[in-house]
Amino acid sequence: MVCVVEIYERPKLNNPVLVEGLPGIGFVANIVTLHLINELKATRFAEIRSSSFQDLAVTTETGGTRSPINELYYCKSNAGGRDLILWYGNTQALTTFGQYELCGRVLDIVQELGCQHVITLGGFKQDEVPPTPQVYATASDAETLNEALGLGAKIMVGNVFGVAGLTVGLARLRNLKAFSLLVDTLGTYPDANGARHVLSKLVRFLNLNVDLSRLDAAADETKNILQSFGIIRGIAEEKKKEEQPFRWFI
Amino acid sequence: MVCVVEIYERPKLNNPVLVEGLPGIGFVANIVTLHLINELKATRFAEIRSSSFQDLAVTTETGGTRSPINELYYCKSNAGGRDLILWYGNTQALTTFGQYELCGRVLDIVQELGCQHVITLGGFKQDEVPPTPQVYATASDAETLNEALGLGAKIMVGNVFGVAGLTVGLARLRNLKAFSLLVDTLGTYPDANGARHVLSKLVRFLNLNVDLSRLDAAADETKNILQSFGIIRGIAEEKKKEEQPFRWFI
Amino acid sequence: MVCVVEIYERPKLNNPVLVEGLPGIGFVANIVTLHLINELKATRFAEIRSSSFQDLAVTTETGGTRSPINELYYCKSNAGGRDLILWYGNTQALTTFGQYELCGRVLDIVQELGCQHVITLGGFKQDEVPPTPQVYATASDAETLNEALGLGAKIMVGNVFGVAGLTVGLARLRNLKAFSLLVDTLGTYPDANGARHVLSKLVRFLNLNVDLSRLDAAADETKNILQSFGIIRGIAEEKKKEEQPFRWFI
Amino acid sequence: MVCVVEIYERPKLNNPVLVEGLPGIGFVANIVTLHLINELKATRFAEIRSSSFQDLAVTTETGGTRSPINELYYCKSNAGGRDLILWYGNTQALTTFGQYELCGRVLDIVQELGCQHVITLGGFKQDEVPPTPQVYATASDAETLNEALGLGAKIMVGNVFGVAGLTVGLARLRNLKAFSLLVDTLGTYPDANGARHVLSKLVRFLNLNVDLSRLDAAADETKNILQSFGIIRGIAEEKKKEEQPFRWFI
Repeated sequence: MVCVVEIYERPKLNNPVLVEGLPGIGFVANIVTLHLINELKATRFAEIRSSSFQDLAVTTETGGTRSPINELYYCKSNAGGRDLILWYGNTQALTTFGQYELCGRVLDIVQELGCQHVITLGGFKQDEVPPTPQVYATASDAETLNEALGLGAKIMVGNVFGVAGLTVGLARLRNLKAFSLLVDTLGTYPDANGARHVLSKLVRFLNLNVDLSRLDAAADETKNILQSFGIIRGIAEEKKKEEQPFRWFI
Repeated sequence: MVCVVEIYERPKLNNPVLVEGLPGIGFVANIVTLHLINELKATRFAEIRSSSFQDLAVTTETGGTRSPINELYYCKSNAGGRDLILWYGNTQALTTFGQYELCGRVLDIVQELGCQHVITLGGFKQDEVPPTPQVYATASDAETLNEALGLGAKIMVGNVFGVAGLTVGLARLRNLKAFSLLVDTLGTYPDANGARHVLSKLVRFLNLNVDLSRLDAAADETKNILQSFGIIRGIAEEKKKEEQPFRWFI
Repeated sequence: MVCVVEIYERPKLNNPVLVEGLPGIGFVANIVTLHLINELKATRFAEIRSSSFQDLAVTTETGGTRSPINELYYCKSNAGGRDLILWYGNTQALTTFGQYELCGRVLDIVQELGCQHVITLGGFKQDEVPPTPQVYATASDAETLNEALGLGAKIMVGNVFGVAGLTVGLARLRNLKAFSLLVDTLGTYPDANGARHVLSKLVRFLNLNVDLSRLDAAADETKNILQSFGIIRGIAEEKKKEEQPFRWFI
Repeated sequence: MVCVVEIYERPKLNNPVLVEGLPGIGFVANIVTLHLINELKATRFAEIRSSSFQDLAVTTETGGTRSPINELYYCKSNAGGRDLILWYGNTQALTTFGQYELCGRVLDIVQELGCQHVITLGGFKQDEVPPTPQVYATASDAETLNEALGLGAKIMVGNVFGVAGLTVGLARLRNLKAFSLLVDTLGTYPDANGARHVLSKLVRFLNLNVDLSRLDAAADETKNILQSFGIIRGIAEEKKKEEQPFRWFI
């Protein structure tokens, strides 16, 4: 199957911007996007599954199941401005092949909906982080970079791993505008503070009016989801896992 | 080749239920399904091979060979009730890609035969297990969950790894009803006691009349098969294997 | 590309038998087949390359290059009896996917040429080996097994790894007759003595008249080829390799 | 996607020679090719991306992004002699499958442009290297080897890993002439001295007039690019990486 996309609705969108928010360093993108989905009451219009995701199901508190998935949401601007597409999920792909496939599919879908601007989010792992972490930017082109720098970001120096980096690279190839906003983070837990600083720049860029008071709740929800998928693990669990050659039978 | 399916017969089945029984945690599903095949004299109607299975042959006591394989059996209800499809095998796939492919193929086949209800079985690994282990359930939807809970299962909290979890997730995507029954198990050997407790709930749900007295024999057979495939290994063997970079030539 | 097959000639063969001889445990099959190619002056008629082989070239003593390859040779019986197809190479595939693909392709080719009988060869790794090592057999069916046992082989108990095992399993699926002859071997170096014992049974089965005096030379040649591909490695080299994350650049 | 090729221009070339220059042992090929591109003011005419490359973006000093990529350049001979195709990039593929695919695609492209001669470059890792390192050669055929030996190279004895070796093997399969020039190198850093010795032989073979004074600058640029991609890493970084099971989220 590799990637299977199910599209529930093809919304008519006005010059939409894609915001990527998959789990990554510090889970910054994941928290920010979940918060936007909640606050803006975004509508889910597509689901993506991939055979490069984990092969498991996670239970919910009510006995239901959750699978590894990526989702696309949209929300229309109140003010007649640019609309938003939010790329949310509980996993990235496990292989580079799966990552390229996943990013390519998402870009196919959003380009069909008229999207020409992509923003990816992430954390920039540091050993120490000041109370007010710095936000960094890298972009597909000089003009787009200037837009990002105008928000108070510094120029990013380093690698942007995974979907956040790959999507900017692939977007540039397709002549889309793209930038990535990355924030100082310790990186080892869902970083609500880092998310807040990225989000404040993002809402300014997008002219969004979003209440930040419930951001900590989004960070907690993110933590719960990712713990249930075993993506955040204690050291003891990590150790145990290494002892299991075929994790599905012991 | 990835998955190659050979279908010997397309049985006409009455509202069939698929029961998944591949080797997994505590080999619970594998024992239960083997026992059902034996007791109900189920008929094999399909064979599945995959290039994501191991590349080896295992010898039988009489000099024959056994290959990594999955099989589908059916058995018709005596009482004119629901028929049964049993998914049995000596392996799961070795990669997540192979797992998605395998589950997708099996669901394709059983849906063609009119199946709309899937049950997966498994163990829930614990460090200690009481003499009467608890059975847990997770399901595709609230109604199906209630059916499982009505059998005395508790709500499952945790991950359902491998085919048992993946199949419930993929079934839900296809609008099939699905639940998973998981039993407390130490997980490191074929657990006949755990299998007995899962089986007792399963036969109640399916209105089957199955003698449990030969279940230990099914556990022993399961142990023999899986040992021959090297899926159950002693520590010394495990160690030896790690020293072999190309296992096929030393 | 996965597998690319180049067929130079489609020989007309009389009820041919395929003999598999890729590098494996003790390199027994590889030595035997190379010796047969040399002694019977077999004709190469097909070459197989796979993207699951290693990505390197090996130099020859005269400055030429050797690539990872599998080859098919044929040789016609002098006595009007069964003809022979020899499957030789300097590697097996590196992944199970590649192994299934490789075996499937070879069986496709030989079946087209009328082959209905497959013999695979190998070593059975032991910690100690007597001067006259035992030969073991496993087969696709009882009748074929009896033919192998009639040569003085015992029933094999254990796993037949890699192409030797996989090919018997896949052959059985295609309703071909197949058996595997495996000989006690220490397994860590090209085992000329083990090869001699397998070969003596094989030539009896095939009614071949083959001089065994140059078998040691075939073992030496096998050793040279496999050392040049790094398949036989000293411990120091093995260690060094583990330190190289990307072997192609350090 | 596997490999995606974008061809900007299909230049008309006179009996062109392909020179491979991807990062490899000692980064010799990479330095040489970059230097040729700079000095000969070669024109980029094709870009190749692969899902077997890393999934990340690397930032430039000005806030732009660099992706894992391979590129083809051409440059026409001033003297009406043979034209040149340069294969440059910041990575090889991460899997053997990806390597075969990549080499196959590049050979497809250059053969379409009339190329029948391929030269690959590389380092030959040694524990000690004299001030004047030896250059070695291996070739597709005796005649081509003699051309390489005529430049003062010795016959190469050993493996040619990765694209440098694979390309010679695949070229031979396509009846192209191919040789590989390999130079003694410690292999652990971009080796400007090794590059100089390879380059001096290459320019002689190609009748090129190339200033070598800026070669050290090319080595430095190569080092910067590869460090930014994390291909050259300090031990501390290497250690850190091993602790990250999913590098994209911690």
